[in-house]
Amino acid sequence: MTLFSRTEYMDRIQRTKAAMADRGIGLLVVCDPANMNYLTGYDGWSFYVPQAVLVIDDQEEPVWIGRNMDVNGALHTAFIKKENMIGYPDDYVQSDVKHPMNFVGDVIKQKGWDKKAIGVETDAYYYTARSDAELKKTLGKDTLADGNLLVNWVRIIKSDAEIALMSQAGKIAEKVMATALENLVPGKRECDAVAAVFQAQAAGTPEFGGDYPAIVPMMPTGEKTSAPHLTWTDDPYQADQAVNLELAGCRHRYHCPIARTAFLGPNPPQKLSDLADITVEGLNLTLDTIKPGMTGEDVERVWRKHIAKKGFEKESRIGYSMGLNYPPDWGEHTASLRPGDKTILAPGMTFHMILGMWMDNFGFECSESFRVTKTGAKTFARFDRKLFVID
Amino acid sequence: MTLFSRTEYMDRIQRTKAAMADRGIGLLVVCDPANMNYLTGYDGWSFYVPQAVLVIDDQEEPVWIGRNMDVNGALHTAFIKKENMIGYPDDYVQSDVKHPMNFVGDVIKQKGWDKKAIGVETDAYYYTARSDAELKKTLGKDTLADGNLLVNWVRIIKSDAEIALMSQAGKIAEKVMATALENLVPGKRECDAVAAVFQAQAAGTPEFGGDYPAIVPMMPTGEKTSAPHLTWTDDPYQADQAVNLELAGCRHRYHCPIARTAFLGPNPPQKLSDLADITVEGLNLTLDTIKPGMTGEDVERVWRKHIAKKGFEKESRIGYSMGLNYPPDWGEHTASLRPGDKTILAPGMTFHMILGMWMDNFGFECSESFRVTKTGAKTFARFDRKLFVID
Repeated sequence: MTLFSRTEYMDRIQRTKAAMADRGIGLLVVCDPANMNYLTGYDGWSFYVPQAVLVIDDQEEPVWIGRNMDVNGALHTAFIKKENMIGYPDDYVQSDVKHPMNFVGDVIKQKGWDKKAIGVETDAYYYTARSDAELKKTLGKDTLADGNLLVNWVRIIKSDAEIALMSQAGKIAEKVMATALENLVPGKRECDAVAAVFQAQAAGTPEFGGDYPAIVPMMPTGEKTSAPHLTWTDDPYQADQAVNLELAGCRHRYHCPIARTAFLGPNPPQKLSDLADITVEGLNLTLDTIKPGMTGEDVERVWRKHIAKKGFEKESRIGYSMGLNYPPDWGEHTASLRPGDKTILAPGMTFHMILGMWMDNFGFECSESFRVTKTGAKTFARFDRKLFVID
Repeated sequence: MTLFSRTEYMDRIQRTKAAMADRGIGLLVVCDPANMNYLTGYDGWSFYVPQAVLVIDDQEEPVWIGRNMDVNGALHTAFIKKENMIGYPDDYVQSDVKHPMNFVGDVIKQKGWDKKAIGVETDAYYYTARSDAELKKTLGKDTLADGNLLVNWVRIIKSDAEIALMSQAGKIAEKVMATALENLVPGKRECDAVAAVFQAQAAGTPEFGGDYPAIVPMMPTGEKTSAPHLTWTDDPYQADQAVNLELAGCRHRYHCPIARTAFLGPNPPQKLSDLADITVEGLNLTLDTIKPGMTGEDVERVWRKHIAKKGFEKESRIGYSMGLNYPPDWGEHTASLRPGDKTILAPGMTFHMILGMWMDNFGFECSESFRVTKTGAKTFARFDRKLFVID
């Protein structure tokens, strides 16, 4: 019942081993839940306790280590043999005296793998300072090799099977955005509109059920649009205000983020309409220009030149690689569309390009999730690019 | 527009400083988003980048440090003065060459606070190995003091204002559980039932809008009940199967978890009904026995003796302290109701007591979230304790 074929998983592992060899790593301790999923298929909301997948240079399959009660979840979702799934007893959980990373270190020692150069994902969300210290203590090593983002970079080119899931996420994203726009009614509480969005995200479409996106719906309005990561309140939406919508569809942990802006009333301010036109024009132009062989910074330059002609500039990056992920972020922390990014775009890479233009007291944003094809860029969702005027 | 009074925040900070003094810590770097919220009110989905609240022994207010774009979010939600909110430039974000914790270290040095004994939350979810290494590097220190769970323990006794929010979360939890039970219809896809639950969680009640719980809805059925952290699928619910429901209501980040079990059909197996009776009897008895002055292990013993009389035993803990939190967990990682836990129950402590009884091929669970009162325990939600037979 795994999501991908054994062949596909084994290909991912081969490419991971090659990247490990490049960094001189013989055993990689993978704690990022998206990377654990990528390498084994394991999918569960168990990342609130330490867990790991070990990739070992001379072992065919990786080894999954998690809490005893999650071994059944691994049996349901991961492609590896049962003998490569190892559970730790519950007294390791939130204990003063022992830590799950002691168990992971003990497994490594028992197998004799502690002679290898061991790498860890130093900046992965759930690989804490204590995880690192306890692993080092058990292994008797002062330092470990840096395997940070190693698997993330292996993930950057998606397979056809992954692209298929992201296309399904795109269908869900279309429905999610339509639902959000329908629920932007002056007088309706923000929490009620967000509730409809959550409903649409999980229900998905009749063909493709939805999964939970790695980020909750962001639908700020009024002055809160200047605080991009505040969530919702009980306040009712007001007439004659703009609402920024940063949402996503998700299918089997694969995302299609989508952002749009709406105005709640028939007469949006001219400066907002003008900004919307310039931004959408730039989005269209930039998407149309993308070709394999361009770098991340090449893509950004197209946009930058366009808005410069209109008298604007934008400081932050305009996009990033994304796909498979878990809370708190759907971004992959690898390639960005920004000055200085030398990543060469190749078919199968997938990005969220998000153009948010923030003036002193208003803003407009519009985004597309797309894949790089052999000849250009193809979006995962089809949804009008414009300022939505809700009459 | 802060959620609590300045007096309440200052009281929390005083108690944190006292706990710091006990551990010999002069400056505590707080990265757990729940602890950051507790000490300042800051609430935003920005914990996917490093951020911190500094509590300094000789400074009245804490200092919030986050991404530049999140300063506005701090202004909207945190009680501290603007001068105590410091943003870092966007080129610190997901960079190869600099890290937000370098910025945090630089602030500490510029203020001259690097002479103090500096503590960090070594095992907080978002305090990564690299965060720790970069902070040490900037501070020029080989070791930092362990401030892990320090604020979590300060949080264990809730104020009246916090209890009020948890009671509101309890009202939402009642609605959420009722919605889940209504949507357990054979033939309905799991994702559609979960969608209705998400909707209910965010909408809340007409009085109290909902917030996103720190854990997504868990509604496993059939053999998947043996894999507690798998999420949902597109599969339809089947007749004559049990469904375990682990859900929550959430209000301004304060939780009321609630678990129940349902059987989809008029004739649940006798052994399931019997197990339900024994478990509910034990839950009632244990709740009725709770008094301030008992320890965590005293409470567990009441339950253990009850089920032993019926010929059962349960290995894992039966409850844990909870309240304010963010993904991936609503538990506070402090007191547990389990053998060996010496925490003395006091009025204002809040727990989720969850009794899950797992046999070889079926199981029953029932839970209550409650606060310790001056005389006993009072639940936040009112919802029948029984096996729900859905006809």
